[in-house]
Amino acid sequence: MFQTPFMRPERTPRQVFDFAVDQAIECDRLGFTEYWIGEHATMSWESITNPELIIAASARQTQKIKLCPGAHLLPYHNPASLAAQVAWMTHVTEGRYILGIGSGGYPSDAKLRGLKDMSTNHKRTTEALEIMKNVWESKPFQFDGEFYSAGYPENDEHHEYRSTAPYGGKVEIGLAGLSPNSPSLSFAGRNGYNALSVYAGEAAIANHWNTYEQAATEAGISVNRENFRVVRDVIVADTDAEARKLAVEGGIGKAWMEYLIPVYKQFGLLQAMLPDMDMADVTIDDIVEKVWIVGSPDTVAEKLSAVCEATGGWGTTLVYGHDYLDDVKPWNYSLQLLTEEVAPKMA
Amino acid sequence: MFQTPFMRPERTPRQVFDFAVDQAIECDRLGFTEYWIGEHATMSWESITNPELIIAASARQTQKIKLCPGAHLLPYHNPASLAAQVAWMTHVTEGRYILGIGSGGYPSDAKLRGLKDMSTNHKRTTEALEIMKNVWESKPFQFDGEFYSAGYPENDEHHEYRSTAPYGGKVEIGLAGLSPNSPSLSFAGRNGYNALSVYAGEAAIANHWNTYEQAATEAGISVNRENFRVVRDVIVADTDAEARKLAVEGGIGKAWMEYLIPVYKQFGLLQAMLPDMDMADVTIDDIVEKVWIVGSPDTVAEKLSAVCEATGGWGTTLVYGHDYLDDVKPWNYSLQLLTEEVAPKMA
Repeated sequence: MFQTPFMRPERTPRQVFDFAVDQAIECDRLGFTEYWIGEHATMSWESITNPELIIAASARQTQKIKLCPGAHLLPYHNPASLAAQVAWMTHVTEGRYILGIGSGGYPSDAKLRGLKDMSTNHKRTTEALEIMKNVWESKPFQFDGEFYSAGYPENDEHHEYRSTAPYGGKVEIGLAGLSPNSPSLSFAGRNGYNALSVYAGEAAIANHWNTYEQAATEAGISVNRENFRVVRDVIVADTDAEARKLAVEGGIGKAWMEYLIPVYKQFGLLQAMLPDMDMADVTIDDIVEKVWIVGSPDTVAEKLSAVCEATGGWGTTLVYGHDYLDDVKPWNYSLQLLTEEVAPKMA
Repeated sequence: MFQTPFMRPERTPRQVFDFAVDQAIECDRLGFTEYWIGEHATMSWESITNPELIIAASARQTQKIKLCPGAHLLPYHNPASLAAQVAWMTHVTEGRYILGIGSGGYPSDAKLRGLKDMSTNHKRTTEALEIMKNVWESKPFQFDGEFYSAGYPENDEHHEYRSTAPYGGKVEIGLAGLSPNSPSLSFAGRNGYNALSVYAGEAAIANHWNTYEQAATEAGISVNRENFRVVRDVIVADTDAEARKLAVEGGIGKAWMEYLIPVYKQFGLLQAMLPDMDMADVTIDDIVEKVWIVGSPDTVAEKLSAVCEATGGWGTTLVYGHDYLDDVKPWNYSLQLLTEEVAPKMA
């Protein structure tokens, strides 16, 4: 699951926090393998300031699921402080951890941190990651970059310093990509990191895999479809009609109508998801039929299989989390059908 | 309680994390009013990288106790990111939150963040706090300081930004002081913040109160002893002999012998705690008798009352947390005796 979170703006931070932790517990119980949590400071719908807070609260109440910040926006933190925290959390989760990194897409998140334009964000991200890797080596170093400095002390007579090495010696890393020929997915490929394709139409999924694989190949690294995840909106119910109602009238419908459609139109993404349509003609039916994956277990399995076939496939489907706080039962039942009914048909 | 934490260096982060959360739950159950958690990135004994992680994991499992980062070291974070996270956590705890702030005392923590000397730490702290207060106003602003920039966006046609105002509109703040005429406690007094006197002998407690009260009076602010906390090492058992054994042979003894005595000697603090002694002559008995507060409920109540009388008193006693992970029962019983037997004698 990918818990962005798409929680309605009127929800309190405590409601957002509780819902996110409860969903982590539910996903773990149902056998989901990964739970990603977004990070934003200024967005009214995507409103978790630090995904590690959800991870900390979930660590003791889950057993198997990986808990993944998705993504820490590197230009907005002191990279050495973040690296130390990340290493610590890999131990707290006993290795059930993939670090998502990003350079920050929203101008308001940048403005909050005093960045007046975002042109340096990618360079800051690369430099921050370099520092973080140094911190995880847990050996004395000194790094003086264009944006940040960091170092690690030699032990002295009074102090033996704590290891800042991660659990198992290595932090597993993932990057999400959304745009065509995504630079983030190239970067992931070049470094052998995991890739998340944020849904922007079927053409994008194929393009994202090619971008990722090509960069990896050029760097002499072997990646496979198991490293490749696709993030989708999915709703399952016993019948197509019930699933449609749960989607359109529920949290996913509200999020799209009130937040995502305007945003996706602004960035040309809705057009990418519906390449054959005139945006003026798009109705909610088009979105139900052609963008979301909605239906009975059979319908959803068929639709997912068709997308796999058209795009070459992927290792893990990440389902977007949505705000079903007022009545969580049908949403959790959708998750259950997805694991118990849909997944076996896909194997 | 003040969970620095003094956990042995060989403890894993997961053990430190679980012990800290379990202690928060136990302290809440016993009626403790505040639970402070330290923040350090490089220390082998004081090894929690971000106290909010403990607070997040404790928020759902505690009811009344205030959960307090003590302290966030402001020069080591992006102040706007920290401010947004702090505001969010005041809501997650539904107001059970006091923000401890500090400027960072350990050179290794500074070196990790690329600060080659610490001479700017105090100025960075003041500027970071200024930015954080601006963020908590949750109104458009632009701040360009000597060390940091930050801002808050105007709403635009596509986005209504999320409030970054804290629960109840205000963040309660506390500062800890250790040195004579502590600049931190002056700062706390001038701003009407809470004060924590970290134990450095009885003379220091009296000095700390005077420093704090005088700064407040000069600023035209009224503070009282209720705002004043003293942090001490305390162990209670049914008899003096049992308490002594639990202290000397347990976590508190280990922390002092292996970590704190060398550190306290280095900074002249042990001399301040034992002003009439030659440091070469100090034995563990001196520390049990004159530095820690150890004994039966009657003994501990007498000792605490004597210190109160000698120093003018304080509002809240904060007990240092210690590593009783291998057998937590006698330690928790000590906490229980403190609340059930000692506290009523002090009222």
